[in-house]
Amino acid sequence: MYDLTALREEFPVLEEVIYLDNAATTQTPVRSVEAICDFFYEYAGNYGRGTHRLARETTIRCEESREELATFLGAYPEQIIWTGNTTGAINLVSQGLAWKKGDEVLCTALEHHSNLLPWMALKKRGVKIGIIPHEGGYVDPDSVSDMITGKTRVVAVTQMSNVTGTIQPVDEIADIVHDAGAVIVVDGAQSVGHIPVDITKMDYLAIAGHKGLLGPQGVGALYAEDPATLSESQYGGGTVTSVSFEEVTLRPVPARLEPGTPNIPGIIGMGPAIRLVDELGAEAIADHEEALGTALFDALEEIGLVDIFSPRGTPVLSFGVQGLHPDLVATRLDDMAAICVRSGMHCAEPYARSFCDQGTVRASVACYNTEEEVMILADTLREMLDEWDPDSEPDYVPEPDPWEKSKCP
Amino acid sequence: MYDLTALREEFPVLEEVIYLDNAATTQTPVRSVEAICDFFYEYAGNYGRGTHRLARETTIRCEESREELATFLGAYPEQIIWTGNTTGAINLVSQGLAWKKGDEVLCTALEHHSNLLPWMALKKRGVKIGIIPHEGGYVDPDSVSDMITGKTRVVAVTQMSNVTGTIQPVDEIADIVHDAGAVIVVDGAQSVGHIPVDITKMDYLAIAGHKGLLGPQGVGALYAEDPATLSESQYGGGTVTSVSFEEVTLRPVPARLEPGTPNIPGIIGMGPAIRLVDELGAEAIADHEEALGTALFDALEEIGLVDIFSPRGTPVLSFGVQGLHPDLVATRLDDMAAICVRSGMHCAEPYARSFCDQGTVRASVACYNTEEEVMILADTLREMLDEWDPDSEPDYVPEPDPWEKSKCP
Repeated sequence: MYDLTALREEFPVLEEVIYLDNAATTQTPVRSVEAICDFFYEYAGNYGRGTHRLARETTIRCEESREELATFLGAYPEQIIWTGNTTGAINLVSQGLAWKKGDEVLCTALEHHSNLLPWMALKKRGVKIGIIPHEGGYVDPDSVSDMITGKTRVVAVTQMSNVTGTIQPVDEIADIVHDAGAVIVVDGAQSVGHIPVDITKMDYLAIAGHKGLLGPQGVGALYAEDPATLSESQYGGGTVTSVSFEEVTLRPVPARLEPGTPNIPGIIGMGPAIRLVDELGAEAIADHEEALGTALFDALEEIGLVDIFSPRGTPVLSFGVQGLHPDLVATRLDDMAAICVRSGMHCAEPYARSFCDQGTVRASVACYNTEEEVMILADTLREMLDEWDPDSEPDYVPEPDPWEKSKCP
Repeated sequence: MYDLTALREEFPVLEEVIYLDNAATTQTPVRSVEAICDFFYEYAGNYGRGTHRLARETTIRCEESREELATFLGAYPEQIIWTGNTTGAINLVSQGLAWKKGDEVLCTALEHHSNLLPWMALKKRGVKIGIIPHEGGYVDPDSVSDMITGKTRVVAVTQMSNVTGTIQPVDEIADIVHDAGAVIVVDGAQSVGHIPVDITKMDYLAIAGHKGLLGPQGVGALYAEDPATLSESQYGGGTVTSVSFEEVTLRPVPARLEPGTPNIPGIIGMGPAIRLVDELGAEAIADHEEALGTALFDALEEIGLVDIFSPRGTPVLSFGVQGLHPDLVATRLDDMAAICVRSGMHCAEPYARSFCDQGTVRASVACYNTEEEVMILADTLREMLDEWDPDSEPDYVPEPDPWEKSKCP
């Protein structure tokens, strides 16, 4: 077992709150923040082929992070393309492949909007979208077999649902996809760093820097088995070896897919974060998180009026409290015991809405959470329900979208 | 005048090097780095409409930075769209406008690749690209009048050249563009934060977070007079109010143009950086940088064998040393006196190559540089030339592109 006490010292905010919103973002360890400070205070330059010491050092450190991620995944550095977030990684694929009218894409009914909208956007280019059903949060590979056709180009599937934490059989799905001559795009936002991930059969894996890998927000990555399959969808500095007004000569991958100045401090912060995850080990993290998920599931099950939507043992536990709006439950948990959980649709509306029209309350654990923390969540929920007088409760009105409030002139 | 001694304390690395590569990236002040640390250590959550205290605080701080930038520019917050870099901002426009075959775009011959390649990429959609000539680094508005037609949809022009620091008459150009029924896209990478920028006549202004505004790398922004003119070109979480498999309802701008988790620490770091620039004042910064550019120009002019490509007084000074490869000059300046300058094509190959087939050496100043620093550059260059024996000098061979070295399996 890993040393939770030592681990938690890397995350000072855990002394202030019970942080169970890890599916939205994890906390970042002190060692990453210090690496970022070192960059700013000691050697900040721009990334690229600058000759001076700061540019050289910056470039070396950025490439070390790329190597770190590649090694962690069992990939080559050239197969890693840095993006701004998981969304950017998926768009890199959906826009980087060559489409023709009549092509088909299959997504599952479990997907986060970021692995759904980029594919739905292809409809205007004549691409058909099919939705693979699920049973209790799991996609049956037979459903993929049933739906896949000779026109299917891409099957897009999450490795772990961000609503219920269910893990999909991506290896079996990949076999079916490849037999049909298509490629599989795996959304690894919730899996990479949380569970062992085997990229062997994946064509593309979209990665979040700031979730299981504990890195800073603003960094994502795409693993591509063969990045040369992707055309550029964004254009700019750093992608070319030569440019005239008539002709452009592109650099090899991954450079031609990374236009402009990257998120240098973020990428540099990824290195120590990935090393920490690697030290803990994905297997050990998965075991730890499964134990926490199981303990929370069992504790919630004992409370009346709570509907649990996740299967027992997942690290992402969605639930509803009968009669209470999910936003109200989340707000109360924070008010009562500084517990941070998410509420609503979790950017996966079709799946989240299937449980409740108002979405769910979602508690999601990470490597640094403790059993004590999830027990406090259960106890606080019980206390909330004990105190609750349904007659006196005002209806909860969610805040309006701030961008509805004011308009451009 | 502002207090240079106090200002320089915000940038510890300035004690170690003479940093004159500010057109590639500026240094970031301690106050921004501390704001980033505060985020990580005290309140890191994901941006958006989360109900818990960390998500709320994170969202508030991100929106404060947007307001800060809007106020600095004299814009509304809804007119600011965060991107990953200037390149992302320009691609947001080039891909967000609706194009039809036969449309025309005019770019100037001075542009950075990031304000050239996104437009050249439209050729495959049947858009014609015209190149507006320049005279000595300046675009004559009459040249725009001569070239603009009823089919011209966009005129893309840098406000300040990143090769020679020349400032373009964007207001006069904007009048011509608007009279022709087109829009102007201004590349403000080198201008915003360095000189007073008046957005009144601009339709779109692409902004670098990490240049004149002194923010961290990984943040850019687009100012759009009317962001509703832009369609989404990337799709994902945070952009929608509701999603079914049949239909998507988008949030208003700017939200629908910012998919996925943003660079939260970077955006939060922008706030204090912009406030620092605002405290100094763009006018005072421009005066200071002009004085440094003038001093450097005059000092270089006194050295034989140096060709100066920038006009006198610009903050971005490109030059060549007869007989020496620009990369060699840059490397030597670093070796001899820890001077950081750029060399090569500066991602603006057509313009940079017009001076020399090997590009230029580029020294670029920022608000925190001193006259002493630019004088050391001139003195070191003189010393280099005094020591130089053209017969013994081996030919300089630039390092190969690291991505040429190894290939994916």
